[in-house]
Formats: sequence, structure tokens, C-alpha cells
Amino acid sequence: MKRTFEIQPWNVVTHEFHAEDKRLLESMTSLGNEHMGLRGFFEEDYSGDSLQGTYIGGVWYPDKTRVGWWKIGYPEYFGKVVNAVNFVKMRLFINGEVVDLAKDDFTDFELNLDMKHSKLMRSFVVRKNGATVRFEFERFLSADTKELADIFVKVTNIGQEAVEIRIDSLLDGDVYNEDSNYGEQFWNIVDKKQEDTTASLLMETTENPFGTPQFLVGAQMLNFTTMHNTAANDYEKAVENSFMATLQPNETTTLEKRVVVLTSRDYASIGKLTAAMQQLSDQVGVKTRAELQAAHEAEWENRWKKSDIQIAGDDAAQQGIRFNLYQLFSTYYGDDARLNIGPKGFTGEKYGGATYWDTEAFCLPVYLGTTNPEVSRNLLMYRYQQLAGAYHNAKQQGLKGALYPMVTFNGIECHNEWEITFEEIHRNGDIAFAIYNYTRYTGDTSYVLHEGSKVLVETARFWADRVHFSQRHQQYMIHGVTGADEYENNVDNNWYTNCIAQWNIAYALEILSQVDEAQYQQLQVSEEEKAHWQDIVDRMYLPYDEKLNIFVQHDGFLDKNIILDEHQCPINQLSAEERPINQHWSWDKILRSPYIKQADVLQYIWYFMDDFTEEEKKRNFDFYEPLTVHESSLSASIYSIIASDIHYEDKAVEMYERTARLDLDNYNNDTEDGLHITSMSGSWLAIVQGFAGMRIHHDQLSFKPFLPKKWDHYQFRMYFRNRLIEVQVDQSGTTIRLVEGKPLTVELNGKQIEVA
Amino acid sequence: MKRTFEIQPWNVVTHEFHAEDKRLLESMTSLGNEHMGLRGFFEEDYSGDSLQGTYIGGVWYPDKTRVGWWKIGYPEYFGKVVNAVNFVKMRLFINGEVVDLAKDDFTDFELNLDMKHSKLMRSFVVRKNGATVRFEFERFLSADTKELADIFVKVTNIGQEAVEIRIDSLLDGDVYNEDSNYGEQFWNIVDKKQEDTTASLLMETTENPFGTPQFLVGAQMLNFTTMHNTAANDYEKAVENSFMATLQPNETTTLEKRVVVLTSRDYASIGKLTAAMQQLSDQVGVKTRAELQAAHEAEWENRWKKSDIQIAGDDAAQQGIRFNLYQLFSTYYGDDARLNIGPKGFTGEKYGGATYWDTEAFCLPVYLGTTNPEVSRNLLMYRYQQLAGAYHNAKQQGLKGALYPMVTFNGIECHNEWEITFEEIHRNGDIAFAIYNYTRYTGDTSYVLHEGSKVLVETARFWADRVHFSQRHQQYMIHGVTGADEYENNVDNNWYTNCIAQWNIAYALEILSQVDEAQYQQLQVSEEEKAHWQDIVDRMYLPYDEKLNIFVQHDGFLDKNIILDEHQCPINQLSAEERPINQHWSWDKILRSPYIKQADVLQYIWYFMDDFTEEEKKRNFDFYEPLTVHESSLSASIYSIIASDIHYEDKAVEMYERTARLDLDNYNNDTEDGLHITSMSGSWLAIVQGFAGMRIHHDQLSFKPFLPKKWDHYQFRMYFRNRLIEVQVDQSGTTIRLVEGKPLTVELNGKQIEVA
Repeated sequence: MKRTFEIQPWNVVTHEFHAEDKRLLESMTSLGNEHMGLRGFFEEDYSGDSLQGTYIGGVWYPDKTRVGWWKIGYPEYFGKVVNAVNFVKMRLFINGEVVDLAKDDFTDFELNLDMKHSKLMRSFVVRKNGATVRFEFERFLSADTKELADIFVKVTNIGQEAVEIRIDSLLDGDVYNEDSNYGEQFWNIVDKKQEDTTASLLMETTENPFGTPQFLVGAQMLNFTTMHNTAANDYEKAVENSFMATLQPNETTTLEKRVVVLTSRDYASIGKLTAAMQQLSDQVGVKTRAELQAAHEAEWENRWKKSDIQIAGDDAAQQGIRFNLYQLFSTYYGDDARLNIGPKGFTGEKYGGATYWDTEAFCLPVYLGTTNPEVSRNLLMYRYQQLAGAYHNAKQQGLKGALYPMVTFNGIECHNEWEITFEEIHRNGDIAFAIYNYTRYTGDTSYVLHEGSKVLVETARFWADRVHFSQRHQQYMIHGVTGADEYENNVDNNWYTNCIAQWNIAYALEILSQVDEAQYQQLQVSEEEKAHWQDIVDRMYLPYDEKLNIFVQHDGFLDKNIILDEHQCPINQLSAEERPINQHWSWDKILRSPYIKQADVLQYIWYFMDDFTEEEKKRNFDFYEPLTVHESSLSASIYSIIASDIHYEDKAVEMYERTARLDLDNYNNDTEDGLHITSMSGSWLAIVQGFAGMRIHHDQLSFKPFLPKKWDHYQFRMYFRNRLIEVQVDQSGTTIRLVEGKPLTVELNGKQIEVA
Repeated sequence: MKRTFEIQPWNVVTHEFHAEDKRLLESMTSLGNEHMGLRGFFEEDYSGDSLQGTYIGGVWYPDKTRVGWWKIGYPEYFGKVVNAVNFVKMRLFINGEVVDLAKDDFTDFELNLDMKHSKLMRSFVVRKNGATVRFEFERFLSADTKELADIFVKVTNIGQEAVEIRIDSLLDGDVYNEDSNYGEQFWNIVDKKQEDTTASLLMETTENPFGTPQFLVGAQMLNFTTMHNTAANDYEKAVENSFMATLQPNETTTLEKRVVVLTSRDYASIGKLTAAMQQLSDQVGVKTRAELQAAHEAEWENRWKKSDIQIAGDDAAQQGIRFNLYQLFSTYYGDDARLNIGPKGFTGEKYGGATYWDTEAFCLPVYLGTTNPEVSRNLLMYRYQQLAGAYHNAKQQGLKGALYPMVTFNGIECHNEWEITFEEIHRNGDIAFAIYNYTRYTGDTSYVLHEGSKVLVETARFWADRVHFSQRHQQYMIHGVTGADEYENNVDNNWYTNCIAQWNIAYALEILSQVDEAQYQQLQVSEEEKAHWQDIVDRMYLPYDEKLNIFVQHDGFLDKNIILDEHQCPINQLSAEERPINQHWSWDKILRSPYIKQADVLQYIWYFMDDFTEEEKKRNFDFYEPLTVHESSLSASIYSIIASDIHYEDKAVEMYERTARLDLDNYNNDTEDGLHITSMSGSWLAIVQGFAGMRIHHDQLSFKPFLPKKWDHYQFRMYFRNRLIEVQVDQSGTTIRLVEGKPLTVELNGKQIEVA
């Protein structure tokens, strides 16, 4: 754990700069607007360690697979989020010398992410060769005009002598992916234009042998300044405008750089793209900065109005939930149905891919509660549209039906560790569960009875081929899987996987009985196949321990070195130096240990919370929680929700704090690589499903709230079936208020109440 | 299965050449003399697909590890056998046009490996622009002067017109490893010299960041010919002498190229190396080709005299056993204690490394029987000398004691798949077992009571830290291993691994009670540690099935989709198109299936054959054999020996044929990559331990021979405690004859007989 930023309710601020934290600062101050995003790297040159990442939604490259030992079925490529044109780039000169905070003497440093207005501010004072100059930056990516980035810099001479300032403003296409498998650069420059105050760059991703599309990206900048234009450099892979001014003591100058970034995803030809780029440039060029900023801020105000969670009495918790919603919405707000939620969003390169099962399992419930149903439906449609890829993945393993990928852009699996790629197949069930979850929450059956039924049938078909019948036990089993707990590989009969497979098949059968005749015919499931599916549902083996009365994570799990004496609780045996264990232990030691990375048995219990008794939930929580190290960012929120459910309130709050401030406090010591975007959902879930006990029972919304001890009050707004409601919880109790829509009946602590 | 060569008792011959078999032909006609070796690639240019590999014993390169996802504990580099100077290289020209069998019209092709005299011959007739020319090649790597290679070519004009012949004779240092992880070339040229008929090249492996030594290799050639010298080319990374002659019809010319190859492994400085190279060149230069060849052949005659196995009535079997012994002895004959037996020897690049557990488990017993004990003792010393590496490997996993590597040159693990590197730890026990095996066979306790005791204690110490105590079962268990059957990964309680660990610890305790006081003190094993070891021995969990009365390969194995009905024997359910399954099935399908790659439970039964009853052996053989696909070259021999032991003679012969002709018939469809050198031991083991039933009982040699039905007779010679004896088996019975040494008493079919 490492807290680098100050605690403020609406801002992520630091007044300190340590070079060793540079990447961490960059991750934490990322901006995004779904169309594009970038890490909070400096505009100007910085010669120290840094990850200068700019990413554009849906623009990716199929990087040729790199493995030590090839195995049949491995994917040919790993789809990478491509580091694209650096459009914030500037070079600053004081009396002809370049400013570089890795080398220069500076004071008054401030880095400030304003989440309310979604802008990043930075300022510092440099002393250089007798000159003293203050620089102040402000940037935003417009939530109103998604193609627009605005970067503003103000320079003030606070020294005693006149100073010559030069600012080079660039669009830099000479960018690399740090995680490139073979050190290749993924871009070719197609066109460059450079005038006095404007310039443009057109780039294309390089050809690939895998038949996936190449992408064109065009960027055009307009610079607004009172400085005078001067001769710019001529770069091979960048364009530049250059400006100079002589500042007398106390004199100030400014430069505003507006950039529009367009891609071939939206325009069918180079001609159309460049025309649109010019047109958009002209449009934003005639507005004032204040106008552009106001439109951007209005959109964010609207978002916060619908979804802000207020916590009184705990600023750290308050900052945490806002940071999480802010970063989640910066990554995806449902405006482009072709996009999804990458695990690092626009904040880093690690893990590649546009989507993991995180989207369905962890993010979808948050979008269900905070945005209109169309956003969530788009997330489901994304999978339906990638069915062809899912067939391909199953076929790669020699299996029938559809296997959704662990990581992908286009539906084709990209992951290349056999124990994940081929074995972490619970993801198929999670994607099926999302259909159920959407339908349960929204009451909208239009997806499940049409596109969704196809997804359910094809995932069920996969499971039916993937199970085997054990002659010995006369039951169906699933051998060779990795559960949600990736600290166990290639295990037999992971309880969660067997349960979700069984449920997935049963739900497919149920939906088959509900679809209309035309859809039924199209699905082509024979009576024989249905009977076989029913047999699998009826005779699925689910490991259970009669002595401890718990669901067993997988066969053999209880043979591990587990000391059940509560005074020797295993998690307490780990020293601080060896945590996180995945950064200190060899892989085999992790596998052999009983430590659990993230909710596994408890993941399924969370999905179907009402299907288990309180005693069952308690017994399983009591057994598995002390073994869990929460080294996946997706873990703590689930434990928090279940702890709330079984009235372990202190534990629920402890887990909330961990999920809410995972990146703010760098719990897993890896935030420098980028933020844990998909797990940003966790704090919302922990408050709404956990503390407030929100459930859907038979089409009805219900709550059983409690107030964490150190909080005075919390309140949140949520969407439910065309209503926006507000829930307030304080020491006097819970108030539910209708903000928009028709009155509805809600269950509160077991009682029916009218909300009007 | 694919048979490309004709069946001859002493020769591996083909008269056909198909470009698609080129790599297979090259593998099969490899030559080696322990100091160096090469694949049977053509001397002259060949523009088609080919693997032109020349390798030098002990000369390797640490190639930076390449993995998809790094895991803590992975090695930094993979030690590769380096493709070194191509010293057989020539270019042939007919009337100025280069000869290239990938393009030219040719007839009368013959490729002939003479195993008796260890030489490779090749001839063909080329028709080119009206000319018709016969080329005949002969090459050998001297078994007498290990640094010497001799390449001879004879050219005859069999056309109607005069022909101008040119031969360029080269030492080519511009060589690459096909299996280089990042496409790097591992060599720098240090020096080149080129005169009329002689030339030399000095090369050095490139620098590496891992602190492993660089190697210098020097090669010097002398060309003997009646052709006239002509201007040679000037190459950056090669040297050349060039010769021309005009041949009238029926006229012949010859060129003999002698090359000496020396390395910095034998010479402490460049100066000493180049001086030695000149001196050796001078020495071999004054001899005739006949003299050099005679000395070489005499050494091979000597080898065959001691070890040849004769089989009457089955030429395929005869060719098989000779090919195996020939290739094994070409790889290692115990002359250099710093060397070991790489899995591909000098015949390919795949798998890298100088040694696997194959050496101890499969090769050592053959060397014990065919060479003097010093050779086998050298193989044991090799491991003692690499103890530092084994400590390092254990430490990488966070464990105590010594873990011998899966693959290495210097003791440090090079393999980089977690399921092998960290989990296939039975290798530690196999290396301990080799000490026992050596001691049992030779009666020489000098190793086990000194160096060997250290190896035993440190391997036992590893096991004691690697096991865990299951509270639930009140027994010690070993979770997360891969057994000899690599088609199961990360299993719990592999019976073979648990057995060999238990035995390893018990043997260490036994030897601790036998070493002298000084050695005991040095080993530093406390009474407490010994007591703990004894507790592990006493309470080791060994999976057993009471219903089937078999040892269970690992926990859960019997839950697989195993149909026990003999009419549905699983192996019969595999179609020819899907075998070998490792070339047709995805990895997860292989893991989930019950198919077994190689002897696993049966490997341990083979080690301790006399500790199991015939009924036990039968029950386990009957259960596991039908599940075994023998896709490791090390498998069939073990099944053959056990089948012999339990009187399944037809099965024993079937398995013998598979092991004896594994490469000759390309059973596993991968011989193009190189020969399966370490499994070349299998046919000797199948005949001597299998058909002849050779065992050591209480310091006494015993036999229980049978004669395979289609054989008329077989005989073999073997060493045992300063004797060379000959065993002949035919339909009339068994004759044992003393060839060298003092008389001894031998048990034959349960009776004591005097051999004098």
C-alpha cells in the first residue's frame, strides 16, 4: 500500500514529485472520453522513466504470439491496444534551453485531476540559468465533442530579467508499444502537413499477416497564442508548430492547442476522413476555449447528477468511489456499441485486448444501475456480434459450440497461456449469466428471447461437449480447468465452474421453452440434445465436504496444508514482505499454497445470493475468506458484498476500503502499469449491493441498508426501470426518494414502501 | 510411421531422394565422435529446405528466455547447443554452373551410412548442359583423433565431352541456430586465414549478459587434390580454397579435405589454441587418408567387439539395435567427463541443453553394461559437479536443498514452462536412483559414500521441504507436480513422484548410516532433520485403488473418462489420423484425456522390479498399457522390459520393435528435427533386461531369457565387474561365455552356473 495523492472529495492532487513515482502519477491522472484517452504524462520532454501512452478506442494491432513452447490451439496473435499519436506533446525552452523536470531545478509542483469537471491541471516553477518561470497546464478530452482534445499552457516570468520562451507544439507519430512482442513499431506515416499554427498527421497501423483490419488515424491541431510564429523542425514521423516570445518580469503568455483525432473506424476512405478532420477542425476553431470547456463540463455534470455517491464522514471513501466512477465512465459510457471496457482502459498497455469477462461479471451491474438500459444492452450485443470468434475458439480446442475468449478485440481468443486460454472457461458461464442479470434488472426480454438465446444455446453446447461422464462416479465432471482463482491451475471440478456450467445449460433449456417458434427453429436444438443437456444438469458433480459443510473449491483442495485452527489463520502467517505473493513467490509455491487470488466459490454465491441460506453463506465465507489474498483487483468487492449480506459489517467496510482505494493507495503495487479499470466497478457494487443491500426479487427492487460505523451518512442515485431514485442512509434510517419517473413500490428491510 | 531407408544389417541406405524427406535423411545420417558431430546434410549447395547443423560438444550459448507471460522463478536463459562452423561445406561447379540437387536433373542417387566403419557415403550422377558427371562423397569424424574430420569427393566425367569442374572448399562461419529465440547469430569471427590449399577460421560465441563463458572455436583445413588451385572468393564470415580441373570423358579427379576443429574448452588462450591447431594440422597432414581411416575404424571395431548385439532371423530388428548403439556411442563414449548426452546429441537443435534426466534413467544402465565403470562414474560426477546449480534451482522456487534441472549445461535450470521447470521434479529422484543403480551394478561404493552422499542428502532435503503435511489425511503429500507422463500437468500425488521421493529420503538415511565420520560431519544433517525425514518416509501418502488393486497414477486419475470394458480399450478408440495426439489435439484435450505419454507408474516398477509381485506388475501393466500412446521415445522400452518380465512376450517384442526402430521408421513423426539420442538406449535395455531378463540380485548377475518367436538367435556381450561376458540365446537354450576376466557365478533361470 502506498498513498501518493492527497485526500480531497473531488480532486486527486499531489504537491510532490518523485521520479520513482512517475509512472504511478501518470496512471492515476489519466483522462479518457471513450473515443480516446491518455496517461497523465507531461506535455513537455521528460528524460526520466515514463510511459507516454495515448490510446484510441477500437484501434488495435494483432501482435504475433510469443511463447516459449508452442501448444496446439494457441492463438496466432495477441491483440494490443496501440500506443497512438502523442497529441499533447510540446517542447518548452527557456532562453534556448529545453525544460526537463528529470534534470531541472523546480519548485511549487502541483498535479491536480479535477474529477468533477474532468480536467487535468499541472503547474511548477523552474529556475534555469538565472531565469525563474512558472508553467501552468490544463488539459481535457471533450465529453461533448469526443474527437477533441484541448491543451492549454500559461507561462509567467516571475524572475527579475527578461526571458525568451519558445514552445514547440507537436503531433508525434513516432510512438512504440512497450509491450510489443518483437519490438516492432505498429505505425506507418501516411501523410504530414505543417503550416504556421496548424499541422496534421495521418498514420496507419502496419500490415499484418492475420487478416485483421488496418486502422487509419488522423490528427489535426490548431494552436492559439499571442506568441509569434517561428521556424519549426522537420521530423520524419511528427509535425510541429513553433512559437516564441520574450517575457519581461511578471509578463505572461499562453498557448492553447486544440487537436481533433479521427479514425477509419468512422470514415470509409482516406478522403472522407481528411475532409471530416478539416470540417471538425473548422468547427472547433471558431469557438472560444470557454465554450468548448462549458460543453464538456455540462456533460460531466449530467453524469454526476445521475450517479454521484455522497459519503459524509469519510473523505478517503468519498474520494475512492468518485475516482472509480470517474475512471470507469472515462473509459466507457455506452456511446459506441463497437467498444468495450479493457482492463486498463486508456491508462496502460498491459493485458491488451478490449474485453475480458470482467465486463459482464463486474461492470455490467454498475452500468445497469447508473446509465440507461441501452448501454448495458450494447455490452450484450457486443458478444452476440462476436459469436463467429467464439465458434473459432471452441474449434481450436476440438470442441463444439461457442467459447468466448479470455481477451479479444474481435471475438478470437488472444491469450496464450494454456492454463488460462484453454482452461479458464467459466467465462462462458459469466457471459451467459450477464444475459440473465440484464433481463432480471431491466425486465426487458427482447435480448434474451432473440440474440441472447443463440448465445445461451451455443455456450450450453460447448459445456455439453466439454464435460465428461465419469464411469466411476456415474456423474458428469469437468476436468482441467482454472477457476476465477487463477492461483490454482488445471484443477478438476472447480465448484464455481461446474455450477455455472450446470446453470448455463439449465438456463438455455429454460429460454428454449420461451422463445417463439421462428427463433426455436433457427436455434436447431434436437430433442435428443435437450435430453442430454437435461441429463448433464441432473447429474453434474459438485464437490461438497460433509464434514465442514462447505462447497469445495475443487477436488483435492482440502488436502492442502490448511490449518483450520482459527488462531493460526493462514493469511496471518504471511509476512508483509512476501505480499503480494505473486510478486514474491515462485509460481509453483503459489499453486501449492491454499491462498486464493479472488472470489471463486464466493463468486457463484454472489451471482445467486438468494439461492443460499445465511448459514451456507457464513460457513463458506468463514472458510474461504481467511485464505484469500485479494491479489486480483476484482476480489475485495465481492467479499464486501457477501460480508454485508451476512452482517459482517466491519469486514464489509474493510473490503470496501480496499476496493475503493485499490489504485489510489496502490494496494497491489502495480498501478504504475495502468489503472484497474474494470474493477473500478467494485466500490459501487460494495455500496449499493453491499451496504444498501440492493437486490431484485421477482421484478421488485429491495434494500436492507446499514451505515458503516465511521460514516455519518451516504446517498446514491440509481436507475431502475425508467426511474431515477435516490437512496439516503444515515443514523436515523433510510430514505428513498423518486427523482425521475413514475412511482414504484420498493421493499425496504422486508417492508413494502411506496416511492413517489 | 514412415520407413525411408532400406533394411541392411550394418548400413542405413537409401537410393531415393525426395525433397520433402530432406531433413529426415539428414537426421538419420548424422555422424558424431563425442567431440563434435553433424547432420547428414550435403557438402554442396542445396537451395531446398534443409537443416545444416554442425555442433561441438560443450560449446553452447545462453539464449535469453522467451515466454508469453513471465513467472517468478523462471530461468533467465535457455542453454542452446550452438550451430557451429560448417566444415564440410563445398561448392561444386560443372562448366561454371553450380550443382544444386534441389534444381538439377540427377540419377543414381545413393546415401549410405556405414555403421560398422562409421562413415557416410553419398553418390549421384548429374546431367547439366549436356555434361554428365558422377560425384562420390565419403566423410568420417575420426574416433581416433577426435578433432579431425575427413571429407573426400571423387568426380568422374561419364559424358561424351570434356567438362570443366570447379570445387570450392570452405569453412563457413556464417551459421545460425534455427531455434534462436530472437533471431540472433551467436558468433563473431575473430580471425581468418586463407592460402592456396589451406585456410583457417577462428570464431567466438558472442557476449552474453548472464555471466556464462564465451567459447572460441578454431578450424583449419588442408585440401589434397590433383586439381589446380584457382582464385578463391573473399567472404566476410568464411574462408575458402578453390580448385579447377578439366576432365576428359571417363576421367576422374578427387579432393580430400581434412579439417581439425579445436575449442577454448581445451586451450587456455587464443595463442595456445592456434598453436595446437597448427600442430595437429601438421600431424594429420603427413599421414595418408588410408592411415587416418584405419585408425578411426580400429576404434569402432573395438567398440563393436565389446557391445555388438547380433540377431538372426530379423534384419529390421538387427538394423535397429545397431543404429541405436551406433548413434549413442557417436554422441558419448565417456572420453570427456565434462560432457553429457543431449537429447538430440549432434543431430539437431531442438530441446537445447546437454543433459536431461534421460541420461540417468535410460542411458546410464546401457553404459554400465557396455563400457568400463569409469564412463558411468563420469556421468555421476557430472551431477556432483553441478550441485551449485541445483542449489540455485531449489532457491528459485523458495525451497531448501538441491533441485537438479530439467535441462542444463551448467547445472542451472534452462527450461521455461512452469509445469515442467517447477513441477517435473521426479528428476531429482531419478538422479538419486542412478547412484543406487551404479553401486548395485558395479559394487563400487566409492562414489555413494563420498560425492554421492552429498547428492543424496541435498536431494532428500529438497523433498523434505517440498512435501506438505495434510492435516486432513495425517499424511505427507506432494501437490502440484508433473510426472514422467507429461500429458498430465500440475497433478497432486503422482504415485511415481511420491514413491521416488520417499525412496530418495530413505536411501539418504541409509547412506548416512554408512559414511565415515568425516563425511558424516561434512554433511551436517541434524538428528532432528533425520527424524523428520524418517517421519516423511513413514507417513508418505501413496495413491492406491482398493477396487482395481492398482497404484493410481495421481489423485483423480480414475475419475477420467476411462471405459474399463476390454472391448472398448481406449487406445483402440484413437484413429490413425489423430495420432500422435500431440500433433493433432489441443493441449487441454490431451490433459483431460486418460492417455499416457510414457511409463509413469511403470517407470517406478521398472526401477524396483523385484520389489513387486508378478500379480502387481500384471495388474498395473494391464491397466496402464492400453492407455499409453508412447509419444515419448523413452516409453516403449520400459513397457517392453516389464512385458518380458510378466511373460507377455508378444507385447515385449512389439514394444521392442517400436523402440528399436523409432527413428528408422519415424514412429513419432518428428525425426526430421533430429534423432532421439537418449532413447537409443531403449533397444539395448529391451533385449538385455527384457528378453534376456538380466538383473542384479545381491551382487550377482542373473538371467531369465526367452527368444522372440520370429528370431532364430540373438547374442550380446556385456561388462560386469571386470568381466566381458557373452550371452547367446537360441531355440536350444542359453549359453553364457566368459570373453575376458575371471570366472564368475551367474544365476540362469533360477539356477547357479559357473561361467569360465
